[in-house]
Amino acid sequence: QIVAAIEEFFAETTDKPLADLPLAGRRAIVTSGPTREPIDPVRYIANRSSGKQGHAVAAALARAGAETVLVSGPTGEPDPPGVAIVRVETAREMLAACEQAMPADIVVCAAAVVDWRPADAAPAKLKKNGPAPPLLLVENPDILATLSSGPGRPALIVGFAAETNDVVAYAQAKLKKKNCDWILANDVSPASGTFGGEHNTVHLVSADGVEDWPRLTKREVAERLAARVVDHFATGNR
Amino acid sequence: QIVAAIEEFFAETTDKPLADLPLAGRRAIVTSGPTREPIDPVRYIANRSSGKQGHAVAAALARAGAETVLVSGPTGEPDPPGVAIVRVETAREMLAACEQAMPADIVVCAAAVVDWRPADAAPAKLKKNGPAPPLLLVENPDILATLSSGPGRPALIVGFAAETNDVVAYAQAKLKKKNCDWILANDVSPASGTFGGEHNTVHLVSADGVEDWPRLTKREVAERLAARVVDHFATGNR
Repeated sequence: QIVAAIEEFFAETTDKPLADLPLAGRRAIVTSGPTREPIDPVRYIANRSSGKQGHAVAAALARAGAETVLVSGPTGEPDPPGVAIVRVETAREMLAACEQAMPADIVVCAAAVVDWRPADAAPAKLKKNGPAPPLLLVENPDILATLSSGPGRPALIVGFAAETNDVVAYAQAKLKKKNCDWILANDVSPASGTFGGEHNTVHLVSADGVEDWPRLTKREVAERLAARVVDHFATGNR
Repeated sequence: QIVAAIEEFFAETTDKPLADLPLAGRRAIVTSGPTREPIDPVRYIANRSSGKQGHAVAAALARAGAETVLVSGPTGEPDPPGVAIVRVETAREMLAACEQAMPADIVVCAAAVVDWRPADAAPAKLKKNGPAPPLLLVENPDILATLSSGPGRPALIVGFAAETNDVVAYAQAKLKKKNCDWILANDVSPASGTFGGEHNTVHLVSADGVEDWPRLTKREVAERLAARVVDHFATGNR
């Protein structure tokens, strides 16, 4: 009921003074979109993330009164109102921008960070001369794990786990491994239509268990998450 | 002068009947945008091509009366009016779509095809477990060379050479190697702002030599190219 009431509240634009909003005085950092990891000046590795879900989360937290920084990879999404935006391309730039935006009370890592990058980005466009050499990859920094383990750890850290199979099991493993508070697990297999689409079906995984949310629009997922964040800070629950 | 007159003609919308347009009765195929080469269901290799130049070329040829098929990789560009669009993702899909659209009198390969693809796209999202294995790449089919050497070769085949260095020298080599008629060579180094930008500085390379065009908008480049195509078919020149 609390959640429903708060969701209704968010759904309306409001003329309330900022200080009366439930997350007033809280700082939030949200990551969104894919990253691009350069192979050479024109080619890169990326993924199908559209940024819709992350941008919606940033907008919802801002509507709830949080001072919100959105750190976004390249997307075609419009800038959410009332949000400070930092645009980045690579995972390393995304981590640096998040660290720069700290401290924060709330971090939501919704970006689909490319886990590996080419070991050496070529300074000029690679030519097609004979067989291609294998592309050597190195692991990118883990933004969620880094922010969860560093000094000044935010009070509430939320990750997304985008998988194409065994979605909840991977999310439970990720929750522990990355020392975060909640994982929103979602299916991004091509059949799901999640990447690029308007809808999302997520499971909220926490130390308390797994909560299955129904199929919602990405905006609804964002509002429900923001309502849970408000509830978390209101009650001190995890 | 002919070119200038025809450019002016194209710049206006016209109510002339199709049959009176200079490329009426000619068929054109234009490729545009990047390709995406899957690593797994969510990750891929791509490049920074925006599709602006290829889409502008398709629009200009259609305005000149050609029956135009645009074979496009993923872009954020609006559909050009009066053009049939076939959307593809990979280089192999792009080649198949071009072959399906044949025969044609004019082919303009403006797409920035990714030259290599991962040898085996993984059926499920790759997990980050330990060091990443090297990504094995295989060469993609060469769309320009394939269309230039097959049966029913179009009368006029135009390629683009997007380079970050030694732009004209590479274009001259490409012209011979791929058996095409004209190459529009352009600089796509990050400093040039060509990929994603509104302007382009191109060199038209043919067996007759190199023609340096001034810095133009991509629409102007497209109109100038269409005017040259009209002139080619009007005079029988190469």
